[in-house]
Amino acid sequence: MIIVIKKQKDEKQLNNLLDWIKDLGLGVHLSEGDNSTIVGLVGDTSKVDIDLVRSLDIVEGVRRIQEPYKNANRKFHPDDTIVNINGHKFGGKYFQYIAGPCSVESEKQIIEVAQAVKEAGATVLRGGAFKPRTSPYAFQGLRDAGIELLLKAKHETGMPIVTEIMSVRSLDLFKDVDIIQIGARNMQNFELLKEVGRAKKPVLLKRGLANTIEEWLMSAEYLMSEGTTDIILCERGIRTFEPYTRNTLDLSAIPLLKELTHLPIIVDPSHASGLSRLVKPLSLASVGAGADGLIIEVHNDPPHALCDGAQSLRPEQFADVVQAASVVLPLVNKVRD
Amino acid sequence: MIIVIKKQKDEKQLNNLLDWIKDLGLGVHLSEGDNSTIVGLVGDTSKVDIDLVRSLDIVEGVRRIQEPYKNANRKFHPDDTIVNINGHKFGGKYFQYIAGPCSVESEKQIIEVAQAVKEAGATVLRGGAFKPRTSPYAFQGLRDAGIELLLKAKHETGMPIVTEIMSVRSLDLFKDVDIIQIGARNMQNFELLKEVGRAKKPVLLKRGLANTIEEWLMSAEYLMSEGTTDIILCERGIRTFEPYTRNTLDLSAIPLLKELTHLPIIVDPSHASGLSRLVKPLSLASVGAGADGLIIEVHNDPPHALCDGAQSLRPEQFADVVQAASVVLPLVNKVRD
Amino acid sequence: MIIVIKKQKDEKQLNNLLDWIKDLGLGVHLSEGDNSTIVGLVGDTSKVDIDLVRSLDIVEGVRRIQEPYKNANRKFHPDDTIVNINGHKFGGKYFQYIAGPCSVESEKQIIEVAQAVKEAGATVLRGGAFKPRTSPYAFQGLRDAGIELLLKAKHETGMPIVTEIMSVRSLDLFKDVDIIQIGARNMQNFELLKEVGRAKKPVLLKRGLANTIEEWLMSAEYLMSEGTTDIILCERGIRTFEPYTRNTLDLSAIPLLKELTHLPIIVDPSHASGLSRLVKPLSLASVGAGADGLIIEVHNDPPHALCDGAQSLRPEQFADVVQAASVVLPLVNKVRD
Amino acid sequence: MIIVIKKQKDEKQLNNLLDWIKDLGLGVHLSEGDNSTIVGLVGDTSKVDIDLVRSLDIVEGVRRIQEPYKNANRKFHPDDTIVNINGHKFGGKYFQYIAGPCSVESEKQIIEVAQAVKEAGATVLRGGAFKPRTSPYAFQGLRDAGIELLLKAKHETGMPIVTEIMSVRSLDLFKDVDIIQIGARNMQNFELLKEVGRAKKPVLLKRGLANTIEEWLMSAEYLMSEGTTDIILCERGIRTFEPYTRNTLDLSAIPLLKELTHLPIIVDPSHASGLSRLVKPLSLASVGAGADGLIIEVHNDPPHALCDGAQSLRPEQFADVVQAASVVLPLVNKVRD
Repeated sequence: MIIVIKKQKDEKQLNNLLDWIKDLGLGVHLSEGDNSTIVGLVGDTSKVDIDLVRSLDIVEGVRRIQEPYKNANRKFHPDDTIVNINGHKFGGKYFQYIAGPCSVESEKQIIEVAQAVKEAGATVLRGGAFKPRTSPYAFQGLRDAGIELLLKAKHETGMPIVTEIMSVRSLDLFKDVDIIQIGARNMQNFELLKEVGRAKKPVLLKRGLANTIEEWLMSAEYLMSEGTTDIILCERGIRTFEPYTRNTLDLSAIPLLKELTHLPIIVDPSHASGLSRLVKPLSLASVGAGADGLIIEVHNDPPHALCDGAQSLRPEQFADVVQAASVVLPLVNKVRD
Repeated sequence: MIIVIKKQKDEKQLNNLLDWIKDLGLGVHLSEGDNSTIVGLVGDTSKVDIDLVRSLDIVEGVRRIQEPYKNANRKFHPDDTIVNINGHKFGGKYFQYIAGPCSVESEKQIIEVAQAVKEAGATVLRGGAFKPRTSPYAFQGLRDAGIELLLKAKHETGMPIVTEIMSVRSLDLFKDVDIIQIGARNMQNFELLKEVGRAKKPVLLKRGLANTIEEWLMSAEYLMSEGTTDIILCERGIRTFEPYTRNTLDLSAIPLLKELTHLPIIVDPSHASGLSRLVKPLSLASVGAGADGLIIEVHNDPPHALCDGAQSLRPEQFADVVQAASVVLPLVNKVRD
Repeated sequence: MIIVIKKQKDEKQLNNLLDWIKDLGLGVHLSEGDNSTIVGLVGDTSKVDIDLVRSLDIVEGVRRIQEPYKNANRKFHPDDTIVNINGHKFGGKYFQYIAGPCSVESEKQIIEVAQAVKEAGATVLRGGAFKPRTSPYAFQGLRDAGIELLLKAKHETGMPIVTEIMSVRSLDLFKDVDIIQIGARNMQNFELLKEVGRAKKPVLLKRGLANTIEEWLMSAEYLMSEGTTDIILCERGIRTFEPYTRNTLDLSAIPLLKELTHLPIIVDPSHASGLSRLVKPLSLASVGAGADGLIIEVHNDPPHALCDGAQSLRPEQFADVVQAASVVLPLVNKVRD
Repeated sequence: MIIVIKKQKDEKQLNNLLDWIKDLGLGVHLSEGDNSTIVGLVGDTSKVDIDLVRSLDIVEGVRRIQEPYKNANRKFHPDDTIVNINGHKFGGKYFQYIAGPCSVESEKQIIEVAQAVKEAGATVLRGGAFKPRTSPYAFQGLRDAGIELLLKAKHETGMPIVTEIMSVRSLDLFKDVDIIQIGARNMQNFELLKEVGRAKKPVLLKRGLANTIEEWLMSAEYLMSEGTTDIILCERGIRTFEPYTRNTLDLSAIPLLKELTHLPIIVDPSHASGLSRLVKPLSLASVGAGADGLIIEVHNDPPHALCDGAQSLRPEQFADVVQAASVVLPLVNKVRD
């Protein structure tokens, strides 16, 4: 960490700062320039409160040199983390499909969709039981009953399941859930991160609506600092000024994350755009960008004509995506397993 | 709500859509144009899932005419809501100062700051017991003990207190807290909103990092749909591309919110910029824009030189802000009470 | 266009508005609701000044139904525009590579790079003569002399050339340039758009730093309204809050633009990220998303070690991208020609 | 400038970099850490191409310590620049009102508005002759004839005038214009900046739609590097994700700019929101934030009922703003002159 001190500085304040840094167990390296003094901090600066330093009267600016995350940092863990879910591997050379309906609606629906996506190539079943909705008047999911139905589908098809948690109160319900999903709106729900982290189960951690890559990795760090090791990151689009799409899918994040962290990273093209007709092009784009997997909404509901065309694909459309993507996988040195 | 149907449409799908709308108890008004067909929905459309409609194959676009929030909507509640906290009124013609330290640190600290800000003109005491921090390695607050210290300061000074809740698990601790704060990162923690809403206590609802005004009012609607009536909205800056400030304070939101909702709205100039030297100009700006109050960080810690210059003001600087702002209040038809 | 009129409206103002709409040659369709009155406009509303209408006292909101662009709109021109540059086709089923150095530096450099990228598969040569730089102290390009060198490279290799124009004053210099590039910072330089539009030459129109898809198409409309027909759109990343990448490449824009417009769209992965090591993954992603081509920075300067690793690829790295992308092209029904 | 070198570095590349830095006449200070090597650059680093350095293979990151602007930098010019327009001073302790219509429409209109705003307290007349419009089908201004009408109004009322330039081609027309305005969309039209800079006339430089404070000051630097000294910066709102307002007015920029630069800074509350009813609160807010002036749209067109309510104020509403703001001026140590 580099602290730039103003030219007109109060020497006493500077000494206070230097003492404070040394009290944190860090070394200090001072160099005087014409227009400013540079203080270099040597040692583990992840515990330094950068906002506090930045706010000091004598400080002109602070620049971090070292990333503030450690457990999630590839520098300290050069090998890819492989998250193994009942034999299905995320990370490294492996590529996986997670698929299923937006919401769990009924036993028949979830089992039928599970069978269909399994046949088409998915290895993990997704389905929303607790649904985060902007409006209190919108359908909030089947909740506890939804988890039950997912477990039935798991039992029926042998597919491991992933579903979103929205409150520490429902943690007990997730005992047999294979991957706990932390949604975008809860990415910085730190109390939830801590409790889920202590469960030491695999976690699918979605990027927040408007969170930086660094903040995202810091949320992974929350989970890891409590003992979780198996984290799958999920890019799902960020908020920008563009109104045509619900979110702007940030695919540059994928090769960048491959440098910054050893954790696997998958993409959710269904939520990113909110439009089913964008799922295929964005899926191929994600594979090309080097993602470790895709999580795609698939429904199986032909008679219920209203839903036709939603952000969910029909099973045959999902199969077509899997088919097309399989051609790209060797280019990015990936295999399905 | 207006639904624009594509020119090349499937008549069967259109009829399915029209039937579905009628099943929701809404009227339908159809007008055929050269390039598209317009479906107008008549009635209470707040229950219509706009994302679902937008995703239909035959739909080109959907435009909401009516706001999706009802309890928070000024259209249905033209009179200002006045939130009365132990006789101190927020909203209408009233203006209040909330002040106190970023974090509660000790009994001596919180009581001294409380006395100082009370003398300078604050009517409500703030102080963080549970602290949302990006890093798991940063100080997380005194937690339960912090609430205890705030209650002591309340007892000592007679000032009502406001402090942030971060988990449903700590709701019991907030029994004697006068205003429960929902922080920016929890603005869309819907399960927390519902449980806090059921407590029917006054709530200070901060705007999320990158949330629209409409989403903010929908979060207020979550609280109100569970029975809460006393909500104070708090603008604290939004996330933009500008790196010089931590957030961009959105003061245009204040006169706009005055039109859209009957709820009081205050401003947090301390967190918006993260720089104490910006607090006074942004405070005067907020009063000029028509805010119903300010929440300002104040500390009282001269020997602890490091903190000097942080985003917190010293008590005498806070008194100076109160003094200066008092000149502006009559211009915006506000009084302190 | 739908205009929502406030409940408490001034009838005289409403009548003035209705008269003004009729004077524009538009039909009016009025429907009274409980909380608002809806005015539907029938006819060609592209000439209606939406900001003016929105600002009227009696107006609660305005929603456009029809896009404000006509010449660029796929609705009115369902077939893909194929831009033919000396036999190399952009759009439809065709895919092209544009490649070359960031800046033209010398005759030797530009000719060597041209030969190298031609051999690797590029069909059009790029190179900056006029360079838009944030700082007046940074290298501004060889300017007129740079154009001369590009023309020599064109003569030597037979490759058509594309280079950026920054001022109407240099339009004469672009007589023999095959494609005139309008850069991101000039996307809304309307006087430049008009003059370039009158030249009726092929134009490469980059998306502005923070411009919406609609504004981008409106800038194409400026060119088309002056007579230009051959426009290639170029996505190059948009500005977001994320600091790790220079820009956020918006690949969702590609399938969306395919619906909205008939114009070809290519991607610039070099400028989007500013990092050469991201060029390959983002190139594959762009092809997967359905782009009609790529524009990639390539340099050929091994002795000048400093530049090694810049956002430019070396020729052999570029050849590797072309090789890898060729596997994806059939998946998106594209051929090189 | 601080360059962080990767742990696994190529020594030859590092030496090349160090030589290149020394060739630029800069000193180098090297410090080896456990996980990275830090290179400190000593001297005037404004000529270092930060993007080039960042892109090197061996570089992990670059942090600027010194601002890249010099002429505009308060560090090197501690005293406020006072821009004197016919005796009306911008900057320092002075506060000015610029007012006038959005577009110049007729001789009668511009003279009537000029007289009205002069009487209400404006000292400079604004009016658009060349209008930047997103759509080629929208009114583009009276252009040359508009400038003529402004000059007539100047002659009639004695008020200096400010109007926007959109192309280097019209520079001759601006000979008698007192302040040349560079609009938001041309803030990074560098060729225009250079030519206007050479005219050495006072310039009103608006902030771009999505430009950082640093980029804005770099555009001022373009003007200053060509010889212009009298620049008035104008904050007019930035682009964010919020759809309710046209732009988000960034008032935090004002106190920040007061630290970073010696140039005066005014605010345009009319364009920021696009809503006339927000002009008064945002004007008071701007004064409170410490602005050196306001530029406000005022029209004078009662019979043309349609415009009533637009983003423009009527003269009596403008007078009311001036009246109210006069109460705030002493608080921020400002006088009108």
